Amino acid sequence: MINAVGRDIPEEVLKATGREVFQGAFYYDNKEYTKAAPTVRANIDPKRSKLVSSIREALEKCGAHDGMTVSFHHHFREGDYVVNMVMEEIHNMGLKDICICASSLGKAHDPIVPYIEDGTITKIMSSGVRGKIGEAISAGKLRDIAVMYSHGGRVRNIEEGRVHIDIAFIGAPTADECGNLRPSGGKSNCGVLSYAYVDAQYADKVVAVTDCLVPFPNIPASISMVNVDYVCKVDAIGNPDKIATGAAKPTTDQRKLLMAQYCTDFVAATPYFKDGFIYQTGVGGASIASTIYLADIMRERNIHMGLGLGGIATPMVRLLEEGLIGKLVDTQDFDLGAVESAEQNPNHIEITGSEYANPMNKGAYVNQLDFVILAALEVDTHFNCNVITDSTGMITGAQGGHPDTATGAKCTIVITPLLQGRSPAVCTDVTTVTTPGETVDVVVTEYGIAVNPSRPDLMEAAKRCGVPLYTIEQLRDMAYAIVGKPDPVQFADRVVGIVESRDGTIIDVVRQIKEFDFSN
Amino acid sequence: MINAVGRDIPEEVLKATGREVFQGAFYYDNKEYTKAAPTVRANIDPKRSKLVSSIREALEKCGAHDGMTVSFHHHFREGDYVVNMVMEEIHNMGLKDICICASSLGKAHDPIVPYIEDGTITKIMSSGVRGKIGEAISAGKLRDIAVMYSHGGRVRNIEEGRVHIDIAFIGAPTADECGNLRPSGGKSNCGVLSYAYVDAQYADKVVAVTDCLVPFPNIPASISMVNVDYVCKVDAIGNPDKIATGAAKPTTDQRKLLMAQYCTDFVAATPYFKDGFIYQTGVGGASIASTIYLADIMRERNIHMGLGLGGIATPMVRLLEEGLIGKLVDTQDFDLGAVESAEQNPNHIEITGSEYANPMNKGAYVNQLDFVILAALEVDTHFNCNVITDSTGMITGAQGGHPDTATGAKCTIVITPLLQGRSPAVCTDVTTVTTPGETVDVVVTEYGIAVNPSRPDLMEAAKRCGVPLYTIEQLRDMAYAIVGKPDPVQFADRVVGIVESRDGTIIDVVRQIKEFDFSN
Repeated sequence: MINAVGRDIPEEVLKATGREVFQGAFYYDNKEYTKAAPTVRANIDPKRSKLVSSIREALEKCGAHDGMTVSFHHHFREGDYVVNMVMEEIHNMGLKDICICASSLGKAHDPIVPYIEDGTITKIMSSGVRGKIGEAISAGKLRDIAVMYSHGGRVRNIEEGRVHIDIAFIGAPTADECGNLRPSGGKSNCGVLSYAYVDAQYADKVVAVTDCLVPFPNIPASISMVNVDYVCKVDAIGNPDKIATGAAKPTTDQRKLLMAQYCTDFVAATPYFKDGFIYQTGVGGASIASTIYLADIMRERNIHMGLGLGGIATPMVRLLEEGLIGKLVDTQDFDLGAVESAEQNPNHIEITGSEYANPMNKGAYVNQLDFVILAALEVDTHFNCNVITDSTGMITGAQGGHPDTATGAKCTIVITPLLQGRSPAVCTDVTTVTTPGETVDVVVTEYGIAVNPSRPDLMEAAKRCGVPLYTIEQLRDMAYAIVGKPDPVQFADRVVGIVESRDGTIIDVVRQIKEFDFSN
Repeated sequence: MINAVGRDIPEEVLKATGREVFQGAFYYDNKEYTKAAPTVRANIDPKRSKLVSSIREALEKCGAHDGMTVSFHHHFREGDYVVNMVMEEIHNMGLKDICICASSLGKAHDPIVPYIEDGTITKIMSSGVRGKIGEAISAGKLRDIAVMYSHGGRVRNIEEGRVHIDIAFIGAPTADECGNLRPSGGKSNCGVLSYAYVDAQYADKVVAVTDCLVPFPNIPASISMVNVDYVCKVDAIGNPDKIATGAAKPTTDQRKLLMAQYCTDFVAATPYFKDGFIYQTGVGGASIASTIYLADIMRERNIHMGLGLGGIATPMVRLLEEGLIGKLVDTQDFDLGAVESAEQNPNHIEITGSEYANPMNKGAYVNQLDFVILAALEVDTHFNCNVITDSTGMITGAQGGHPDTATGAKCTIVITPLLQGRSPAVCTDVTTVTTPGETVDVVVTEYGIAVNPSRPDLMEAAKRCGVPLYTIEQLRDMAYAIVGKPDPVQFADRVVGIVESRDGTIIDVVRQIKEFDFSN
């Protein structure tokens, strides 16, 4: 069945996943539904302790069983130990057919690939599946179809009841014996626990895993004891060096600096660039450089950012400290500067994943964005973006908040070089659609920018800003002129993953990779 | 059917309310249940505004209808305007058969009595029904049986789905256009919005009512925009003078001071009085005097309170500021000193009603209490307490957190003078049971104290503390010796209200009042 971005979603995939095809970014606006709810147990007895001595004991007390869904957050990023230690114990218990519902998975979780191969893990849902897990899925090793959702889409899945979590394991830098959890004050601090909030609210059983038990009450708590069943102290929940890999450094790559300059010039020419504007950017080199350039113009024109949103890195923290930003609301910390600021600066405020980006609540922060500056692996002439599959068709990326912020922002800017290595990044059709073109307003390359024809208002700003202005087709043609029109990536037939739109429909599928066949 | 405190609950009342009889304070420990959930609408469109120009418009947009349940919080206390303005509009719309689910109702709401009389309001659920509403219920004017629940019981009712709120009206000292609500920064500040949190989470529609609209984002928010449908600006949500009636003053009543002294001497003799102890007290004169006496002993012995809990008044705030208390967790502010501290002191932290006292979540704060100091209108020889009906049988009080804290605390102390006016406060059987005797450990009067025989450990402390020690029967006999054994209050047959135990069972009923008949 052809969906709203022209992708053919096989009937058997719709059937296997119980999902519908994507029908447009705003199709489900005003959809009425009854939220899901967990099955929990009353704790009236003041004498009961939540402490367990091992992950094994926690699993047993939670009634771990074949076919269950376990969940994890990714705030420890590449330093996470929790996923591996829990999955190893589940494997040791001989459990099978486990579904992992993660906010994201990365290279830190390469060790669980054997559990995919032996049938311990048969389902994976995650924003991204980087590293060897992505390779395993792309190679067809996972029994069921992987689900790749956005940060907002994950919360929606859980709040709508499409995904029901049996046991949530929440790595917590500090916990008290009652289960009040904080992202700070320990030895493996992660700044915020935003993505774990929905797990705590909606999982039947919730296990806090910490390496730093502190006296009751550990407050203000990001996750409250009223949602936590057990508290398990372990030696280490993560590698702090890899949780916070140091402050993001400004890039010196001339191509990225040029794109940043173009982006900034355009932003400053739009009517949305005015005192109090609301802004989000990623942590790529060009994005960070854009923020730094933009700060110069803000100082010049005495314009202040009212609110900075999203995953936070040190450059945004510095602007907050300088007074150029009024407040930061934070769902994820990318470096030590952000972690420290989240802990100490009262204007740097943790929000939940639902508050950030859930399309089906009563209004998320992304809806208030004036600008979002995003990166992409590919953008096509329909302005569709791909942030998931690389030029070989392998799953290597993550949706993150890409489609959430793109849909919400008044002005969505995607920065991409014209070429990624030897492949055109601006092309006729992206390999995999993750973000629909109707939500993307401007594409910035090092050759110039293109404005989505659906936004004539932004075209005016683009004409004023002094940056070379092209149609998206012209940018594509320039790319193709340099490296030639690429042959499409060749896939095997089997669908190994779906790209779930933030509203729960299927925007695209990812098929099993295969060797390129030159005879085709 | 006779319940666990010996009260006969008529079958027709069990049938009419769908409830069971009380079977003991811990009977439902470990009860497994699936939580309720609201029916909500997705808000994907960033252009949609939540602002409405009037309560009428909010009611219409929310689909207000006959038979619906509307909810309110009582953080504005005797200064609240919100209940009256909403109910007046509902009355003007000609709606009938409305159920009010309030965290509490007081004298401020006397103006809605005519809506009870004309059938606009036919059901009332509230912790307390003071003032003319209590009189109207006691006089049999409400069509349905009133439900009086504890603060924890209200949250449980809503989270269990026993009470479903169609529209929650949340008075908010400040709101932004997106519906982020805070208890501070406005002209009618109330310190915390703890009791409204569950309404925001579980009501289908949520309307914020504010008299101070502030720029987005109004954070950190007590109630998040993700749960708010509409924002309505009105001239005034409350009378600030009556919200915060000034700092509670130490009493000079010698009888109260003596009870406070006895209470403190006992507390200091128990093994729970040690560094880091967790404590809650009410705002009555004797309770506040107890806290002040206790502080002297804390200074003397260099013992610090780890955590102070519950409704907060200025004396606790001063001890926090002095460093004698580590942290305060707050569900309700009784005076201006508490409101200011909640806004400004980072160690004075707002918690939700569920966190405070819900018996059916995974562990509430009340479970961690070492001591709670409570008042009562009557205590009987089974240690059962009455905090709801006066000596004429009229509904004049509120459960509040009385049974919640009594059940949770390691040491529950009830302070009551031997006589309330000309009535014995210590008696053979309380008029109405609100808190079961199995959860009450010690009764303190101005004549001496009595320890519940179920607590031999506390009997040891009582013997050591130097306060006159009696059995509860001896205290009753002293009271009866002074004023005589009272005739029981005479009621009409009709049951006008149930006293709901915190677990949802019926611990007692309240019947319609009638003139005392001396011929009986």
